[in-house]
Amino acid sequence: MNSEMQTLKGFRDFVGYDAQKRIWLIEKIRGVFTAFGFEPLETPVLEYASLLTGKYGAEAEKLMYTFTDRGGRAVAMRYDQSVPTARVIAQYQNTLTFPYKRYQIQPVWRADKPQRGRYREFFQCDADIIGSTSLVADAEILALYYAIYQAIGIDSFYIELNDRQMLIEAVKSAGVADDTVLSVIQTIDKIKKVTEEELLKELESKGVSQSDGKLLLKNLANSQPSQNLQKIMDAAIELGIPKDKLIFVPTLARGLDYYTGLIFEGNIPEYTVGAVGGGGRYDKLINSLVGVDQPAVGFGLGFDRTIEAAEELGKIPALNEKKVLVTIFSPEMLSASLELTKNLRREGVIAECYSDETQKLEKQIKYALKKGILYLLIVGPYEAAKKTVVVKDLQKNSQETISQDKIASYLSEK
Amino acid sequence: MNSEMQTLKGFRDFVGYDAQKRIWLIEKIRGVFTAFGFEPLETPVLEYASLLTGKYGAEAEKLMYTFTDRGGRAVAMRYDQSVPTARVIAQYQNTLTFPYKRYQIQPVWRADKPQRGRYREFFQCDADIIGSTSLVADAEILALYYAIYQAIGIDSFYIELNDRQMLIEAVKSAGVADDTVLSVIQTIDKIKKVTEEELLKELESKGVSQSDGKLLLKNLANSQPSQNLQKIMDAAIELGIPKDKLIFVPTLARGLDYYTGLIFEGNIPEYTVGAVGGGGRYDKLINSLVGVDQPAVGFGLGFDRTIEAAEELGKIPALNEKKVLVTIFSPEMLSASLELTKNLRREGVIAECYSDETQKLEKQIKYALKKGILYLLIVGPYEAAKKTVVVKDLQKNSQETISQDKIASYLSEK
Repeated sequence: MNSEMQTLKGFRDFVGYDAQKRIWLIEKIRGVFTAFGFEPLETPVLEYASLLTGKYGAEAEKLMYTFTDRGGRAVAMRYDQSVPTARVIAQYQNTLTFPYKRYQIQPVWRADKPQRGRYREFFQCDADIIGSTSLVADAEILALYYAIYQAIGIDSFYIELNDRQMLIEAVKSAGVADDTVLSVIQTIDKIKKVTEEELLKELESKGVSQSDGKLLLKNLANSQPSQNLQKIMDAAIELGIPKDKLIFVPTLARGLDYYTGLIFEGNIPEYTVGAVGGGGRYDKLINSLVGVDQPAVGFGLGFDRTIEAAEELGKIPALNEKKVLVTIFSPEMLSASLELTKNLRREGVIAECYSDETQKLEKQIKYALKKGILYLLIVGPYEAAKKTVVVKDLQKNSQETISQDKIASYLSEK
Repeated sequence: MNSEMQTLKGFRDFVGYDAQKRIWLIEKIRGVFTAFGFEPLETPVLEYASLLTGKYGAEAEKLMYTFTDRGGRAVAMRYDQSVPTARVIAQYQNTLTFPYKRYQIQPVWRADKPQRGRYREFFQCDADIIGSTSLVADAEILALYYAIYQAIGIDSFYIELNDRQMLIEAVKSAGVADDTVLSVIQTIDKIKKVTEEELLKELESKGVSQSDGKLLLKNLANSQPSQNLQKIMDAAIELGIPKDKLIFVPTLARGLDYYTGLIFEGNIPEYTVGAVGGGGRYDKLINSLVGVDQPAVGFGLGFDRTIEAAEELGKIPALNEKKVLVTIFSPEMLSASLELTKNLRREGVIAECYSDETQKLEKQIKYALKKGILYLLIVGPYEAAKKTVVVKDLQKNSQETISQDKIASYLSEK
């Protein structure tokens, strides 16, 4: 086959169940966002390239999809959702109502080297409260993040959290120069992934002696939540997060530089690949991006990882398990099958009529089996005369004859 | 403001209600697709440019967003959903189950001159049955299309339909040469938009004399549905479309060349901008695109027009009408408001807690009014002691005091 007949490397088609899983998650998430009073935002795939360049750092910029459009404009494909959101805040600052609570679920593009779990096109899913410095906003964001995993049915989900400001002060008090603090924090961020020895070595390379490093880690480990963080935790618990699902981790660092207060990560114990997203407070970022002074707090949910975890934990319904196939016994019996299909649909049954009256019943059954459809209905001349229908349970390989006026409720009970 | 702080020309942000409307429609449509047993498909935004070029004609190709990626590949942004779907059929032909019933709702990009109702980024929404030549497939597609507008609540929606084959034969029997037939059909397609005089003149320019043209139009007007079309209509009626919503229009032409049988358009009488989509049978197209022989029938729903029509007809719920704002009376009363918010959410009320405990009540009320929130809850020290809550109806400008344990059911009844 020609290469043109293939999906581009690093890109994915979502066919049938693979698309269904994503839709399932989006609908769950959306339901929670709505229940918490967050409003949707959608921005275009293309932006002026000048909006995106200089925002993500030189390494990131190499991964950006940029080109010149037919009108000679330098344009770029969405690289994340934060910069377009910041643009929206600048562009509509006079009409938006603040605090602005928005969520955004859209794909982004990065020309990364494709590898397991890393794609060039993938979904981001963010929620943020923009325009409030209050702990209530932090607590709402935590409660929202937690509620999503409750809605998905993953009760084991918990949140690790910390105060970036506290971390900065602890690092400073270990004698680290101001301009090295964030770099040291990025090293501390690796604490779960490397040995203590490796960590201390890396800290040393950044000017923190082995003994200072040891002391820093020890002090961190023994520290208590800041007053600010404690208040946020109390409020989040009042909003419904069980106390034991909110875990203070004084070495939690979050790699990104722009956090200014609360930082957090979500975890599912059964899912060992890594955190399923996280976030924090970033009171200066929007200003640095678009020159509009708006404090903010929010999170990004790990979309692909959450699907993977939900699937592993058996939370995602199968594609066709609720579907019924109405077969066509023979061309002469077509009307009976069409009417049965119509009536089932009116009663809310997910019903498909096999779409070729000329095919043998055997082929129609094969179709249902291949698609994972569990129930198959047959109306032959005998059933039509008696106003009944034969129901084949394809899983149990059994069949029953049911009256046509009872078939919808019979199937609904299954 | 810099141009970079603006949306690109022809592109749109969807903020709040504008996004909500789209989500509302997508969820309605998806529900019907699922009920009819159609499966979702999502393809990447980027494809090999060679897949798309040569498929849409030279004029269309000028509108395509193409560029060279960092790996030196010529790539193109999705221009429609038919070609990617054809690619999917070719790429997965050994694993897909046929007849393959798929739907796809994704944006496409065309560098068209922006004007009212025409954008460079817009959603397409298609459903197709691939792999069946049977009239049952045609009827299912019609029933599906109709059911979507029923689900939206637009009862006046009707479908005009015709048989392309019949039209071709009628044109041929008017003495038109084989290679001019499709061009003549494109002229007939304008019948609703131009006068008969203009139509006859254009036909004349294509070699059909005024008298032949008149006779052709008269013959068409008097013709009856073909046997094939009548069977499709009968089956669609058996699947639940009321007889009077299925209108045979012998001059309906549909511009595109590739239709081979049934053709149809959906209309909403109250919406006078034009048809809200349409479709037909195209048994040769997939072969011509990707060399795989699969007959197909389907439709594309006019996404933006359908939103516009649904909004004009008052079918789309307002963004915040079901939302409740829990105010924070004072920093001391924060816990009471957080707990109330938690309890409301557990009872299924869409509740937002105002996200700044330091702001005056007045400002919180202004926020609710600006966002169109109808109900505002206040728990002051007196209410907290009495376990009550003040409910302000912002539309009626009235208020009531309700017991906290009855507040959820009180609001649900509103």
